[in-house]
Amino acid sequence: MPSTSQPGTSHACAEPLVLDAAARRALMGHGGAMVWLTGLSGAGKSTIANALERRLHDEGCHTFVLDGDSVRRGLCRDLGFSAADRTENIRRVAEVGGLMVQAGLVVVVAAISPFRADRRLARERLAPAVFIEVHVDVSLAVAEARDPKGLYRRARQGLLRDFTGIDSPYEPPERPELRVDTRHQSAAEAAEAIHGLLQAQGVLARP
Amino acid sequence: MPSTSQPGTSHACAEPLVLDAAARRALMGHGGAMVWLTGLSGAGKSTIANALERRLHDEGCHTFVLDGDSVRRGLCRDLGFSAADRTENIRRVAEVGGLMVQAGLVVVVAAISPFRADRRLARERLAPAVFIEVHVDVSLAVAEARDPKGLYRRARQGLLRDFTGIDSPYEPPERPELRVDTRHQSAAEAAEAIHGLLQAQGVLARP
Repeated sequence: MPSTSQPGTSHACAEPLVLDAAARRALMGHGGAMVWLTGLSGAGKSTIANALERRLHDEGCHTFVLDGDSVRRGLCRDLGFSAADRTENIRRVAEVGGLMVQAGLVVVVAAISPFRADRRLARERLAPAVFIEVHVDVSLAVAEARDPKGLYRRARQGLLRDFTGIDSPYEPPERPELRVDTRHQSAAEAAEAIHGLLQAQGVLARP
Repeated sequence: MPSTSQPGTSHACAEPLVLDAAARRALMGHGGAMVWLTGLSGAGKSTIANALERRLHDEGCHTFVLDGDSVRRGLCRDLGFSAADRTENIRRVAEVGGLMVQAGLVVVVAAISPFRADRRLARERLAPAVFIEVHVDVSLAVAEARDPKGLYRRARQGLLRDFTGIDSPYEPPERPELRVDTRHQSAAEAAEAIHGLLQAQGVLARP
């Protein structure tokens, strides 16, 4: 019976790595790692991601922000917002981020990523690399009052479906490495706290 | 009428870039670029990619090899080898590679990528970044005689379907930036030629 040419079985063949993590780390001057920011739309994930990237870049660290919105315009533009499509979206973000971490970058993901199981799969995909889950915590009331993109209003009007917090669930992390309360912490303070975790985990050299 | 929450329209919102290409280039010490190796299975794409990565790493250049086989075990593990799945596979490789180039890396893709239209889309996706298409040219007879993974034998026996060169077409590049004749050029020589193109295009500093 002919095989169906499934990927990962028939055509695949493991190639030895030319460069290992140590060689990349030596060149980069730091380890690869993933910082995963999860939270409601409007929580401030992208603002923190950008503040962290700026902070890291200024000290010579090689970074990349994988923003949920931009990924949806490219890699994931075939996906919608159903539960199944959200899961596939997060799977791809984790795969891409995993390759970037393998390249030695500190990758900052800013994505609603509402489902606990999907975030757990991302963490498992990244292992044994450092994975720092950050809950950018905000109440629905506060996020909706901010509504920087006018999305909550449109969702309440029934113009957007499957909107997290309105008609699609958000499952907060149970044991994130960090919880940011955006009512009392600025983006700069959150970035500083994440920076401290990256040092504590040995990704960045200690001062 | 409620919108269907299509990605790229409803939930998307462009964030300003914190780091531009110049800031990344200054930190990396070189520009981002994509080297795209295309050719039959067994042509020697991965060998050249690894030689090039080693060569670049040794001079302090930040690189990543996106190997078709490894991508198929992760990001593209939901895809098979039909024409439509091959097209989607190459689209994702181009998207991921594009993000890595944006991060400032020199990305080396080693993928059969048999269809001209798919490679053209990859080039367009990467624009205005430097894109160097390299045809790792080998005759089917030579590739089949090498058959390093035993895949041609299995394809001839009917155990693999949709195998490029056997029952799935390969469309050679018409105007690649470089054509490597693997009968007369070693992987090291090919890597050296690509290195020269990266210098000529301003990705690497000239000596």
